[in-house]
Amino acid sequence: MSSSDNQRRILAAVDAGFDAQLAVTKDFVAIPSTRGAEGPCQDMFGDLLRERAFEVDDWKIDVDALKDLRGFGPVEHDFSRARTVVGTFRPATTKGRSLILQGHCDVVPAGPLDMWETPPFTPVVCDGRMYGRGAGDMKSGTIAALFALDAIRSAGFAPAARIHVQSVIEEESTGLGALSTVQRGYRADCAFIPEPTGGNLVRAQVGVIWFRVRVRGKPVHVADAGTGANAIKAAYHLIHALEGLEEEWNARAKSDTHYCTVNHPINFNPGIIRGGDWASSVPAWCDLECRLAVLPGWSVAACQEEIVACVSAAARQHAFLDKNKPVVEWSGFQCEGYALPEATAPEAALRRSYDTVYGGDLPELAFTATTDARYYGLNAEMPSLCFGASADSIHGFNESVDLSSLRNATGTMALFIADWCGIEKS
Amino acid sequence: MSSSDNQRRILAAVDAGFDAQLAVTKDFVAIPSTRGAEGPCQDMFGDLLRERAFEVDDWKIDVDALKDLRGFGPVEHDFSRARTVVGTFRPATTKGRSLILQGHCDVVPAGPLDMWETPPFTPVVCDGRMYGRGAGDMKSGTIAALFALDAIRSAGFAPAARIHVQSVIEEESTGLGALSTVQRGYRADCAFIPEPTGGNLVRAQVGVIWFRVRVRGKPVHVADAGTGANAIKAAYHLIHALEGLEEEWNARAKSDTHYCTVNHPINFNPGIIRGGDWASSVPAWCDLECRLAVLPGWSVAACQEEIVACVSAAARQHAFLDKNKPVVEWSGFQCEGYALPEATAPEAALRRSYDTVYGGDLPELAFTATTDARYYGLNAEMPSLCFGASADSIHGFNESVDLSSLRNATGTMALFIADWCGIEKS
Repeated sequence: MSSSDNQRRILAAVDAGFDAQLAVTKDFVAIPSTRGAEGPCQDMFGDLLRERAFEVDDWKIDVDALKDLRGFGPVEHDFSRARTVVGTFRPATTKGRSLILQGHCDVVPAGPLDMWETPPFTPVVCDGRMYGRGAGDMKSGTIAALFALDAIRSAGFAPAARIHVQSVIEEESTGLGALSTVQRGYRADCAFIPEPTGGNLVRAQVGVIWFRVRVRGKPVHVADAGTGANAIKAAYHLIHALEGLEEEWNARAKSDTHYCTVNHPINFNPGIIRGGDWASSVPAWCDLECRLAVLPGWSVAACQEEIVACVSAAARQHAFLDKNKPVVEWSGFQCEGYALPEATAPEAALRRSYDTVYGGDLPELAFTATTDARYYGLNAEMPSLCFGASADSIHGFNESVDLSSLRNATGTMALFIADWCGIEKS
Repeated sequence: MSSSDNQRRILAAVDAGFDAQLAVTKDFVAIPSTRGAEGPCQDMFGDLLRERAFEVDDWKIDVDALKDLRGFGPVEHDFSRARTVVGTFRPATTKGRSLILQGHCDVVPAGPLDMWETPPFTPVVCDGRMYGRGAGDMKSGTIAALFALDAIRSAGFAPAARIHVQSVIEEESTGLGALSTVQRGYRADCAFIPEPTGGNLVRAQVGVIWFRVRVRGKPVHVADAGTGANAIKAAYHLIHALEGLEEEWNARAKSDTHYCTVNHPINFNPGIIRGGDWASSVPAWCDLECRLAVLPGWSVAACQEEIVACVSAAARQHAFLDKNKPVVEWSGFQCEGYALPEATAPEAALRRSYDTVYGGDLPELAFTATTDARYYGLNAEMPSLCFGASADSIHGFNESVDLSSLRNATGTMALFIADWCGIEKS
């Protein structure tokens, strides 16, 4: 049987399994696995692995074991239930190259429910899309990896190399889930992360720094508002200064290999603000949770210094902040950007698979967000591919994934696994 | 016995009772009677009244009975435990003029505890001051009213007119406590509120409007921050516009009888801000709780219209807000300013008492905050005096009251009661 016969049989199996894939995806999306509440998703994923006879490693993450590793991001919430689940397939005889397939099951908060057309954790399939928080980012991708493997098996084959299928948490906040797999020693000849990249290969991704700016000061009765600091207004002075830093970094990005043609790749986002507790008291405090991107090759420590310098300089120009210095705290992501080396063997395999499914050259992308790929690429020096379906409104309301793109991405992934790991008759 | 002998005996009794007054004040300040949690303060005050053989009326406030009355402010929290406590003294024979003495027992939130030198609800006496949330605003004043009456009794007298001693809630948010006493029918020939006015008579007080500005919009992944609205940044655009309205109103205040000489009497305060829920999601919503003052004689309805017009005009100039109209909601204070009529009989009595205790003319004040006096003055047409001790940092950290000023204010109040109500030997 020729290689293209095998490919046809695998793709036919992807199609045949697609309804089942969507049913499992719906169940996975229905779990409200926001930060700290990922447990039931990890349980479900562990069960899916065991049903498929994977060897399952399900462990609690030990933050202390991670805190000196590259790309560590501090956590402040209860981390006692934080787990990673890895399923391992070991072939009878190893012929091909080993592979890590990784997805994350944590999702960002849904926001106000009244802004959703259908409830975020009641996934709905409509007009060729599945709607729900995490349907795009990235529960459909994680389940697709499982069903790509199922398709190979349904087509009568088994992979001919070791495969770790990894479900992690904290992708949206620190990356500690992916980092924990690297720390525990999971390695392969390449990693593959089916994030919803819109059918593009991620050539480069930004790093992300999260920081909190805390403004504190002496409040007064609003009758004397002129004499006291309004911490809410002062926080805006700092937002404005940080927008200046954002523009400075975007100017710097114009000479970056990967991002020179991307419009405004560095985004500064004041994402959460909380200040004051009484309309008639001049607010004495305001906390701002921010996100700022950095480009591959930029030092996180140097960028942190620039952020602190920016806030300090702005404070010096502000009568109140000059006397009540704002504090910058690092919480969550403190991670570098990552650029996938050109023309590696796994990329070549993915390009072949893409061409078979989509017909044509795999387009590539300088991504303005981060993914877990950085840990495999930077900490473990594994070429780390990121490729997947097309999604809309990830992190927004009415998040959805396009199902036809999901089917194509699943097929591409199945062919890639067959190509990279090799297959043998089962 | 001459009138000045009586006064000396009453003031001596105030001095003699001052340690006991401070002890009761400490107990009263120690109760964390923030909004919704005033019950134990009302219980304590009811007990203090019963110990003194007052007739006690302690009732649950019925919001529906108030909502069509002048100066009503909407409440949104659980109001099921909201109570008013009124103690009534009825003389054997009525000779003098009747009096309402009113204090409020609600206090504003303490804010972050680490910004207090001593815990807010563990009152401490040090260097001639008492520190604690509410020590100034206005638990020391409420207890002073009771001890002013005690002093009259200790000096061997009894008031010769009906007196209602009223402890109310919601002074810091809607005024519904004071309004409930008016609705229930309590009246007297004048009202007296011992707020911490620093030894001044409040000639005029501002009205206060509380409003919430709600910004909503479509969030996106921060990777596409440029394409989505940042509700936190948009809220700042509205703060800026409202600062413009504040200046417009301050310009108008320059021709006001009472406020023409006051620097910046109209204060706009964005007091609470809450927006977004994830550092890496462009925030889709931001709520601002604001306070803005109005001068006596200004129509609240007309001022509300100006606020809405200001927000609407600012929204039209903002690409995102123009498409996603911010909403203005009224919650809390919607109250007018109040000016005490000149040269009424109760004011003359207070001036006499003040001169006896302090020596000299009672200074007066155009107050840039509001007090409950407006309900007695506007709804019930009772001259409503507001006079009391000197306090620091009310609504701030390390709030305190000056004890020597408290003693003087207590003495002045005792002499005022004796003068206004008349006294008879007990």
